[in-house]
Amino acid sequence: MRFSEQLSLAVSRSQSLLCVGLDPDPKRIPPGAGEGARAIVQFNRSIVEATRDVVCAYKPNLGFYVSYGLDGVAALIETRKLIPPEIPVILDAKAGDFANTSAAYARGYFDEWGFDAITIQPYLGRDGLQPFLDYADKGILVLAKTSNPGSGDLQDLELESGEAVYETVAGKVNAWNRQHGNCGLVVGATYPEQLGKVRALAPDLPILVPGIGAQGGDLEGSVAAGLDERGAGLIISASRGVIYAGSGEDYSQAARLAALKLRDQINRARETTIAGRT
Amino acid sequence: MRFSEQLSLAVSRSQSLLCVGLDPDPKRIPPGAGEGARAIVQFNRSIVEATRDVVCAYKPNLGFYVSYGLDGVAALIETRKLIPPEIPVILDAKAGDFANTSAAYARGYFDEWGFDAITIQPYLGRDGLQPFLDYADKGILVLAKTSNPGSGDLQDLELESGEAVYETVAGKVNAWNRQHGNCGLVVGATYPEQLGKVRALAPDLPILVPGIGAQGGDLEGSVAAGLDERGAGLIISASRGVIYAGSGEDYSQAARLAALKLRDQINRARETTIAGRT
Repeated sequence: MRFSEQLSLAVSRSQSLLCVGLDPDPKRIPPGAGEGARAIVQFNRSIVEATRDVVCAYKPNLGFYVSYGLDGVAALIETRKLIPPEIPVILDAKAGDFANTSAAYARGYFDEWGFDAITIQPYLGRDGLQPFLDYADKGILVLAKTSNPGSGDLQDLELESGEAVYETVAGKVNAWNRQHGNCGLVVGATYPEQLGKVRALAPDLPILVPGIGAQGGDLEGSVAAGLDERGAGLIISASRGVIYAGSGEDYSQAARLAALKLRDQINRARETTIAGRT
Repeated sequence: MRFSEQLSLAVSRSQSLLCVGLDPDPKRIPPGAGEGARAIVQFNRSIVEATRDVVCAYKPNLGFYVSYGLDGVAALIETRKLIPPEIPVILDAKAGDFANTSAAYARGYFDEWGFDAITIQPYLGRDGLQPFLDYADKGILVLAKTSNPGSGDLQDLELESGEAVYETVAGKVNAWNRQHGNCGLVVGATYPEQLGKVRALAPDLPILVPGIGAQGGDLEGSVAAGLDERGAGLIISASRGVIYAGSGEDYSQAARLAALKLRDQINRARETTIAGRT
């Protein structure tokens, strides 16, 4: 099944545009989950069991697993396996390399480890992306405007054409999407105005929107700016604000309550936006 | 010891600016090296034993290891360990993420796995790079102009300022280097003219130059354009042209001969360039 269909089904089932980031932090995993890299899997299992009916996707970030060394990578692979196959899992790897290397990454992340989508850096251009694009069933989510303060260093630079770099990326990815229809974009919730510009340049692409919660993103503004014509097309991701909502033994229940609250907040913003359009 | 010192010592010892890329490809590892992921370690061990006195660095690319799954990642860690500590090892991970995630990657790649330098994507800007920069002893090699044909899609775009995107990246990294002096750049050997521009913008930074050999880079042109004032400052990387120089049982000897030939070719180009300057 294509990533976009898998995502649509998950959105319908959960009535949710919320994606939960599974980013383990040794200093913040509650003691009840155990010790070391094993604690990651136990922690993620509890979070997934508590939130699986209220999310449209999960998004583990590779870096947090690599920081634990080989055991951490093993925990990432186990984490993928413990998520039900009907819920898409986006590997936040921010990958990007030459064609032959991208093909190697795609084999590893898609074929070996079974992820459904991946985040990608645009800096190397289309030929580096092509081996990922050739996996027609997988989602290829390309960074356009990231949520961090320093994203302006490169992404906001104005080109001779009058466009900013991130706008050119959005336009190019929208064109590349014509081949297999499996592209998406990434725009941080801290930049709703830029999200609106990206939506105008890529009317039908799914947009992953991280930065809600700990990073201070604007949820209502992002929903208003980023919803597509059908009132969908957003994957709104929160990590620390959900998975570390509680620090006691009831941490998974606290995560569920935080996820429910965010899901409902997103849905209210969605209804307001749709109502305002008619 | 700082990466730049470690590199200078290795260059003096080997009289070489050649870096060998350790990029295992299941289809090209000769049968003598064994089967599966174990074959990677055996293959790399033979290549390192045969070339360690004629190279200034090694550069494994993460993607080729990830393609073998968890066993491949284990082989990468083993590969790092079998390289003598006096030879710097650059992890070609093309990493780049937000600050807290970059800190996690740095813990994994530097502290856990012991790499001496890393390649980095510039798209997320300075704050995402900072945790890597804070490892003052490690080399942080930022992509400026990559060797692939599609590198023009984004890197060559002309900014309102009249500079290309890759030139702006080179200038910014040169400025960021003032903090700890641990930055470098990456420019493909397929673009000697652009390498000259990057050298002018970053007179003292080490520049990693991949693309010699299989990718058809211009060795002489790159050396002429990229050598610094002291007649050094380049790390010229070849992978397939060296490690797959032979396909029989004597593959490591064939790799040694290919490495020696490239080392001498680089040194001749270096002498010609230095002679032409005086």
